[in-house]
Amino acid sequence: MTLAQAQQLDAGDPLTAFRERFVIDDPDLIYLDGNSLGRLPHDTIERMEAVIHHEWGNRLIRSWNEGWFELPNRLGGKLARLLGTRQDEIILADSTSVNLFKLILAAVLAQPDRRKIVTDNLNFPSDLYILQGVSSLVPGCRVAIVPSPDGIHGPVEALAEAIDEETAIVTLSHTVFKSGYTYDMAAMTAQAHHAGSLVLWDLSHAAGSVTVDLNGAAADLAVGCTYKYLNGGPGAPAFLYVRRDLQEVLSNPISGWIGQHEPFDFDLKYRPAIGIQRFLTGTPPILSLSAVEPGIDLLLEAGMENVRARSVRLSEYFIALWEERLASLGFRFNSPRDAATRGSHVSLGHDEGLRINLALIHDMKVVPDFRRPDTIRFGIAPLYNTYTDIFIAVERLRGIINDRLYEKYEPAGLTVT
Amino acid sequence: MTLAQAQQLDAGDPLTAFRERFVIDDPDLIYLDGNSLGRLPHDTIERMEAVIHHEWGNRLIRSWNEGWFELPNRLGGKLARLLGTRQDEIILADSTSVNLFKLILAAVLAQPDRRKIVTDNLNFPSDLYILQGVSSLVPGCRVAIVPSPDGIHGPVEALAEAIDEETAIVTLSHTVFKSGYTYDMAAMTAQAHHAGSLVLWDLSHAAGSVTVDLNGAAADLAVGCTYKYLNGGPGAPAFLYVRRDLQEVLSNPISGWIGQHEPFDFDLKYRPAIGIQRFLTGTPPILSLSAVEPGIDLLLEAGMENVRARSVRLSEYFIALWEERLASLGFRFNSPRDAATRGSHVSLGHDEGLRINLALIHDMKVVPDFRRPDTIRFGIAPLYNTYTDIFIAVERLRGIINDRLYEKYEPAGLTVT
Repeated sequence: MTLAQAQQLDAGDPLTAFRERFVIDDPDLIYLDGNSLGRLPHDTIERMEAVIHHEWGNRLIRSWNEGWFELPNRLGGKLARLLGTRQDEIILADSTSVNLFKLILAAVLAQPDRRKIVTDNLNFPSDLYILQGVSSLVPGCRVAIVPSPDGIHGPVEALAEAIDEETAIVTLSHTVFKSGYTYDMAAMTAQAHHAGSLVLWDLSHAAGSVTVDLNGAAADLAVGCTYKYLNGGPGAPAFLYVRRDLQEVLSNPISGWIGQHEPFDFDLKYRPAIGIQRFLTGTPPILSLSAVEPGIDLLLEAGMENVRARSVRLSEYFIALWEERLASLGFRFNSPRDAATRGSHVSLGHDEGLRINLALIHDMKVVPDFRRPDTIRFGIAPLYNTYTDIFIAVERLRGIINDRLYEKYEPAGLTVT
Repeated sequence: MTLAQAQQLDAGDPLTAFRERFVIDDPDLIYLDGNSLGRLPHDTIERMEAVIHHEWGNRLIRSWNEGWFELPNRLGGKLARLLGTRQDEIILADSTSVNLFKLILAAVLAQPDRRKIVTDNLNFPSDLYILQGVSSLVPGCRVAIVPSPDGIHGPVEALAEAIDEETAIVTLSHTVFKSGYTYDMAAMTAQAHHAGSLVLWDLSHAAGSVTVDLNGAAADLAVGCTYKYLNGGPGAPAFLYVRRDLQEVLSNPISGWIGQHEPFDFDLKYRPAIGIQRFLTGTPPILSLSAVEPGIDLLLEAGMENVRARSVRLSEYFIALWEERLASLGFRFNSPRDAATRGSHVSLGHDEGLRINLALIHDMKVVPDFRRPDTIRFGIAPLYNTYTDIFIAVERLRGIINDRLYEKYEPAGLTVT
């Protein structure tokens, strides 16, 4: 395995050209954190110029009736094509945490005979915090956090046991943030439905990285962020999915004016809008929201099946390099080995993981991220990461170990989700 | 009163030069809707270029530790100077509706012996919708909507009667959206405190338009948007204020990871952060959030007392023109006459208000907005509106009536908040 070979693989890969669609103004930087914040598409720059100069600067308030009001639905319609849903089942709104709060609380309140929320300990801690908040609002409500057997794989069997006739909702990350383990969405959803429970999937690490078919899996609810593999920009608005037949059954507890039946009647009494619209709350942040569109367009243009296939090719290449060059240097493989249960990042554990991560970023211009206690996550964004990126990153990683470059760092410090 | 006189007044006014700090690329457009969406400051263009190209495009995930994480607090610290609070009492987050939900629910849950929320029918309907949602989550909780005696002035006396030992919180718009009536914040807060109730002020129409002194009024809580007189951009993130001694007493019901004590410990259990930070929820939309800063800076540079004085000067000029030139054409004065109880917009009622508003926008390039059943709101943004703007707008308005230009419009259609 050589650099020349990596370059050859890039030259022959059908999706390599998509890299040029992103701003890469520091060619020496190997960016492997697209699972935290995706890169800036060139088209986004153009889009933002139009939004700022023309839509805000020139058209001002008139822009609300010239496209802004439809933006959450219009972008939802594009995400629908990416995530396997009907056009009117996804909408962009708020943050992932706020959307999770709305849907979980709605789902629990709609089922007064069921007072248990089931999740696992691989889920985002941020999601668990929201579940805690929801459960404290509903008398008798409790959260069951099912532990993974090894911290890497989902506790599929233990979940099946935990889901019972008390369970109102099962909520899991489709692809989990640390190991990248990816649930069989259809199987787990069927399991929950068998017990009469609803299911909510957090797609933050899955959207744009694995093939998602919400309708095909008969999923009830989903949320997710747009700033990771969707390349929507820092803190870009999140999305939420509510299956069509549930839209009239659930009530949005944060009943805001954008989700009202006729926002401009200025009625004093809230009446929910028809359909997915009712899950909106307040005025959306138009600059950040507008920036989401070009990233989704790029994925639709490439085709999600193609993107996924390339993600697997690149990940398997990384794994082969790990086996040949890193395993002997103390790096443990902290992700599932089977590509079918793995998202688009690969996690390596190391006793000196935290300091190695700092050396990678500050001395080697390789940017992954770190998750306690030992895990360095290497995000492989199929649209812009290359075989060459991965080869160079692994070589620089070897250099850090061989030259003990990590030793100058204190074992402390924070990294970013 | 002549155009020449208006121009002379502009030439002599100390704040006229601030108009040049905004993008005004269509000099024929008279924009009087800054109370819905403020204009684009030139500095914002520069700021957004830096955020998009450098912070997102080049620095990528590293920007979180290079300023993004502090942004909600840093901008809150600037708003604090504008709104009369300590630096650590305001933070930017979410939308006004979501912030209102968080604080009202927190305030009600913290006072189990008090189950009444008091407001008035001049408040934003959007705020009333949120109150409805909150009350449906808390057993026994009810919302008392006190009616204004005339639809213009706040029902000060009836509110005093409604606030009692059952009242958990009184929530009002400081400046109300339709008539522009502005409460005496200190007096109303004292009234509520006398009955042992908390008070939450919605400052959406007040921030940047009237002088606000939250600490001076001993106010407990506040929320508000940043896209009106603060010129923060369409749907820009909102702010929330929690008086320092209440920060540890109230719990954020939407307990998200950004409000967690140590977000990067990835604890499975939520522990609220110390101070105002705990009222954050999810990852903020950085592009929209960054755009808020230049607008606040402009107001701080001009000085809020100066801005307010100019707002009164311009509003009184508008009122004098109304008396001389519009009253006889069927225009009613739907705002308070006393400047001390009026914000920075002036509302005129007319039997043909809806159609006149359409003619203003489509035929006359004057952009105010309309609120049912009869009210045209003329927002006077003190930093960029001028005497000349107002004179020309009134002349065009007279032209619409005199030439019956409104008659071609159907009495239907929607306008935007």
